[in-house]
Amino acid sequence: MTGIVVQHIDRAAPEAIDGLGLCGVATVHEAQGRTGLLASGIRPIYPGARIAGSAVTISAPPGDNWMVHVAIEQLKEGDILVVAPTSPCEDGYFGDLLATSARARGCRGLIINAGIRDVRDLTDMRFPTWSKVVYAQGTIKASLGSVNVSVTCAGAVIDAGDVIVADDDGVCVVRRADAENVLKAAQAREAKEADKRARLAAGELGLDMYKMREKLAEMGLKYV
Amino acid sequence: MTGIVVQHIDRAAPEAIDGLGLCGVATVHEAQGRTGLLASGIRPIYPGARIAGSAVTISAPPGDNWMVHVAIEQLKEGDILVVAPTSPCEDGYFGDLLATSARARGCRGLIINAGIRDVRDLTDMRFPTWSKVVYAQGTIKASLGSVNVSVTCAGAVIDAGDVIVADDDGVCVVRRADAENVLKAAQAREAKEADKRARLAAGELGLDMYKMREKLAEMGLKYV
Amino acid sequence: MTGIVVQHIDRAAPEAIDGLGLCGVATVHEAQGRTGLLASGIRPIYPGARIAGSAVTISAPPGDNWMVHVAIEQLKEGDILVVAPTSPCEDGYFGDLLATSARARGCRGLIINAGIRDVRDLTDMRFPTWSKVVYAQGTIKASLGSVNVSVTCAGAVIDAGDVIVADDDGVCVVRRADAENVLKAAQAREAKEADKRARLAAGELGLDMYKMREKLAEMGLKYV
Amino acid sequence: MTGIVVQHIDRAAPEAIDGLGLCGVATVHEAQGRTGLLASGIRPIYPGARIAGSAVTISAPPGDNWMVHVAIEQLKEGDILVVAPTSPCEDGYFGDLLATSARARGCRGLIINAGIRDVRDLTDMRFPTWSKVVYAQGTIKASLGSVNVSVTCAGAVIDAGDVIVADDDGVCVVRRADAENVLKAAQAREAKEADKRARLAAGELGLDMYKMREKLAEMGLKYV
Amino acid sequence: MTGIVVQHIDRAAPEAIDGLGLCGVATVHEAQGRTGLLASGIRPIYPGARIAGSAVTISAPPGDNWMVHVAIEQLKEGDILVVAPTSPCEDGYFGDLLATSARARGCRGLIINAGIRDVRDLTDMRFPTWSKVVYAQGTIKASLGSVNVSVTCAGAVIDAGDVIVADDDGVCVVRRADAENVLKAAQAREAKEADKRARLAAGELGLDMYKMREKLAEMGLKYV
Amino acid sequence: MTGIVVQHIDRAAPEAIDGLGLCGVATVHEAQGRTGLLASGIRPIYPGARIAGSAVTISAPPGDNWMVHVAIEQLKEGDILVVAPTSPCEDGYFGDLLATSARARGCRGLIINAGIRDVRDLTDMRFPTWSKVVYAQGTIKASLGSVNVSVTCAGAVIDAGDVIVADDDGVCVVRRADAENVLKAAQAREAKEADKRARLAAGELGLDMYKMREKLAEMGLKYV
Repeated sequence: MTGIVVQHIDRAAPEAIDGLGLCGVATVHEAQGRTGLLASGIRPIYPGARIAGSAVTISAPPGDNWMVHVAIEQLKEGDILVVAPTSPCEDGYFGDLLATSARARGCRGLIINAGIRDVRDLTDMRFPTWSKVVYAQGTIKASLGSVNVSVTCAGAVIDAGDVIVADDDGVCVVRRADAENVLKAAQAREAKEADKRARLAAGELGLDMYKMREKLAEMGLKYV
Repeated sequence: MTGIVVQHIDRAAPEAIDGLGLCGVATVHEAQGRTGLLASGIRPIYPGARIAGSAVTISAPPGDNWMVHVAIEQLKEGDILVVAPTSPCEDGYFGDLLATSARARGCRGLIINAGIRDVRDLTDMRFPTWSKVVYAQGTIKASLGSVNVSVTCAGAVIDAGDVIVADDDGVCVVRRADAENVLKAAQAREAKEADKRARLAAGELGLDMYKMREKLAEMGLKYV
Repeated sequence: MTGIVVQHIDRAAPEAIDGLGLCGVATVHEAQGRTGLLASGIRPIYPGARIAGSAVTISAPPGDNWMVHVAIEQLKEGDILVVAPTSPCEDGYFGDLLATSARARGCRGLIINAGIRDVRDLTDMRFPTWSKVVYAQGTIKASLGSVNVSVTCAGAVIDAGDVIVADDDGVCVVRRADAENVLKAAQAREAKEADKRARLAAGELGLDMYKMREKLAEMGLKYV
Repeated sequence: MTGIVVQHIDRAAPEAIDGLGLCGVATVHEAQGRTGLLASGIRPIYPGARIAGSAVTISAPPGDNWMVHVAIEQLKEGDILVVAPTSPCEDGYFGDLLATSARARGCRGLIINAGIRDVRDLTDMRFPTWSKVVYAQGTIKASLGSVNVSVTCAGAVIDAGDVIVADDDGVCVVRRADAENVLKAAQAREAKEADKRARLAAGELGLDMYKMREKLAEMGLKYV
Repeated sequence: MTGIVVQHIDRAAPEAIDGLGLCGVATVHEAQGRTGLLASGIRPIYPGARIAGSAVTISAPPGDNWMVHVAIEQLKEGDILVVAPTSPCEDGYFGDLLATSARARGCRGLIINAGIRDVRDLTDMRFPTWSKVVYAQGTIKASLGSVNVSVTCAGAVIDAGDVIVADDDGVCVVRRADAENVLKAAQAREAKEADKRARLAAGELGLDMYKMREKLAEMGLKYV
Repeated sequence: MTGIVVQHIDRAAPEAIDGLGLCGVATVHEAQGRTGLLASGIRPIYPGARIAGSAVTISAPPGDNWMVHVAIEQLKEGDILVVAPTSPCEDGYFGDLLATSARARGCRGLIINAGIRDVRDLTDMRFPTWSKVVYAQGTIKASLGSVNVSVTCAGAVIDAGDVIVADDDGVCVVRRADAENVLKAAQAREAKEADKRARLAAGELGLDMYKMREKLAEMGLKYV
């Protein structure tokens, strides 16, 4: 089942994707019932990047980045590359040449459960990148993998065309079919947060705002 | 012994606390006989933060941040929240709403042996935060913990009212009763360091300044 | 075999060293056949540092930084300190006083498979430092180690006088005797990369530029 | 989407399940194209256990084992419990009482990406168990999760009714619908291995048996 | 505050200590309100060991086992050595000679948040040992630590004379003053477990035995 | 520099090799000045194995075990395979077929800084194996590495023909040229240990036997 490139994938509506990007990872993750987070080890290479886009997925052998080249041809404007090695690997699959090529095809960023290199160039280019590690170790081009198949990346299942949301808090995936509903829930959540933030900033306690005192007392909390 | 909120705690003198903050973690740790450091995995979310304050401690169940709300009511100007889960946990216990609330109560920062989220907002607010990990995973509010009890946080024992010193080098706790003595020792240490720094900058060797040559020779060091 | 200080070491030609520094870790590592990288856990304490220099090596007991003082006397303009503990250790062997002293002797930076402290001062001084961890825990001065012997540091063998190249991608060692050849290979590689980068930026695909399509088809890659 | 118990699940044919168990993890994993392995951190609590069965899956909150009780009611003869916490957790979800209960319902074993406890009792009972860690830390019963939904467990996607194969090499999942085909491929593989083993034991080299010499020479391998 | 040997320590009643040992770690930990566990990384070197005894504590410098010799003189029949390095260390502090010496003084075992060596001899002697790692790396005898002071060992606070309970599930500490009460609670817990085990073995469900169905329904659990 | 097979290597005298094996890792490591240990993460797959032999080294690409086949042809009676991947890898490079083949060529065991599989078969065969992890993930045969070149394996430099000593304490390498001297030092050490063990077993204290009391007092140790 390796050695397959799916050329046509469906993507979510651009407005839904961009809306999710504005909400950010923590809000989106809450809005879809606390699901879809990648493991905490996947971190941005520089602070402040915040993207959303459609996943072009890559299942790659350890230490072999050949399929990244194959995947770049499949990119459309607004896509995000998602690289999942088939066994744990730290090698640097991706550097400034691949970023240059991906960006030329409209790519918004990279999520990889492995290493990247040329991190200074990627930062200077402001190419948004979330990886497990920075490591200069090179990769080879000897074995096939697949592009746009379902992958498990850092503990999350990602299908091609799913919406990836990534920021300083990490990375979250939203199922393509759920994008619009999750966006609505996320925006509703955000609207409420602004009011809460103002009240908390004014000194109101969460204990009062969320009416927690009675339940805490009932459960036996004792003030001494 | 869970489900307790200690409402009155003693704190060290404000001048001692602020003095310790000026000395910084490495110096304070040395000054009190190389004790009190939290494990190296507790890192600041942005560079440059440097705080000292009185610990308001939270013993929390894994994945449950209810007690943080309870603790915020106990904060006084100059306090620092210290969160110790009762088993290892990466969940994001704390984000921008809680930081807003804590700051409104005079809180100077957060030390947590678990995850935080909304890291961009916390950074933009300049809310000093030291955590084990950044992770958007949400927490629940279902179980009791305790506030202002003695906790073990990242390997260090912290009692409510102890002085927390935190900077880019990590986090150190000073026993409340020791604060003034440790401050004196730390300041004495700092005074000596300025002189040493000047001599070293001028090219004098530590080997000579600390008179190490004789002892090294005696132990058998051979120059070849 | 402990307790030895080698006072005379050979160094590579300054032009070769500086040329390697300009090429950077990823390129140098590729140019010498993908060898010489230190483990990915050795990270810079601030972004943007980029150095090359001759290794002055230190084999140190765990938690004992006495030999760093001994090594500083052996430094010459353009050298880099390389500290390898004899068993895994996180202690802070090195801080701002030692950096001041090392810099006064011409030292370009520090590579250490252990901890450092005073990270804010080291950053403010712009003293280039790559370490395993930041940790304020102090060290003692009680046992001998050796200076300028062959060490294994984070998985790489380093002899005194070897060329260290370090940047945001990590740390790479080049054998002293290979420095000029590796430099040539690295420069040749860089020359080619500029052309490739321009073509990729213009939208040409790696699949075409590297003529990969035929080989992929032959190996059975299927487009569906 | 939490708080759901799927009561009816389809299972693979018992002969296919048992056949896969006889083949073992390494062979089954190869036979289905090197997919389906759980991460290497999931280890058996005692050597020699070897099971196969149908997955009854549990998505559980961190530190909360309530859903294990719910899942046990859903067990049928020959099933295996699969527990996936929704965030990383080491707590001991499972001990000898739950094992007694699960066994009474026909359960063949447990796979858990978290902790277990009472490891001596589980071993004495010979209750086959693969876990991330052994840890006595207790769990609570406060929050809902789900039973027999699709989970990601230690990096592998597992649907209820999928076939779990587990032995000293770790754990592998086979899609329910693929069970019979994978079994055939695994048995074919095993048949070939017996012959190979005999030839290798007799001193024949893999280089000759697999006819590798020509390809190695062509790729440039040099004997010196 | 280093360099102190406390010669007189109070111990719990022998019957309480032995009773706690019979209950085991998981039960004792539950019986005292889920407190006192050491981190999960502290594991027995062979299966089946099960001990309880009074802690003789050692605060030791990294890589220096001098204080173990000092502590052995302080051992009384029924004691357990507890070694806590002052910074993370893997070195092998303890081997068969020290075990021979400790056993001759009545020592029941060793708990160490560092490494041990001669693991085969320790196993053959059946000297119960729980450590972070097995590592042959030797230690020195150059610096002072302290004996029978309060230590933090693998996340747990341990005072000299506290009761240590250790088995295949890990290690738990019981405050000396609490030993008898915790024993009663643990025995009560055990008595109940026997009855539960019998009912579960007979096929009764935890859902019914613990009367969970109503609460689950109320919280919204849905069977589909 | 990849793609090389060194066919002739020098080996130490068989009596020296076997003598070192009898001394064991901890003693040998001490006898050669506390050098040569591999990292603590390299563990035996079953307890009780104890071997010594000459290293046949393999530098292998991540996830590619082709060179193991090449190396097996180079084995002579009494050799030990040493596999060092060029970047961190967990894949299962070695299983029962390779063990069968290696044993047929006189191989005494395997040391690998990566994964192995078929662990039950390897255990049943009593094929001594030390690895980083057990993991069924398969490897490919696509890229060249080298055989009998100098490698760094788990932090230790190993040249072909060096003596490997491995037991339950881990793995240690002795330089070929040093084998006889190290053996003498190790045997001298062992002779002394028997006497010490007897005296310690009789209750004599290390404090007295090693005459430590005076030095401890001089350094300021206080008994209170």
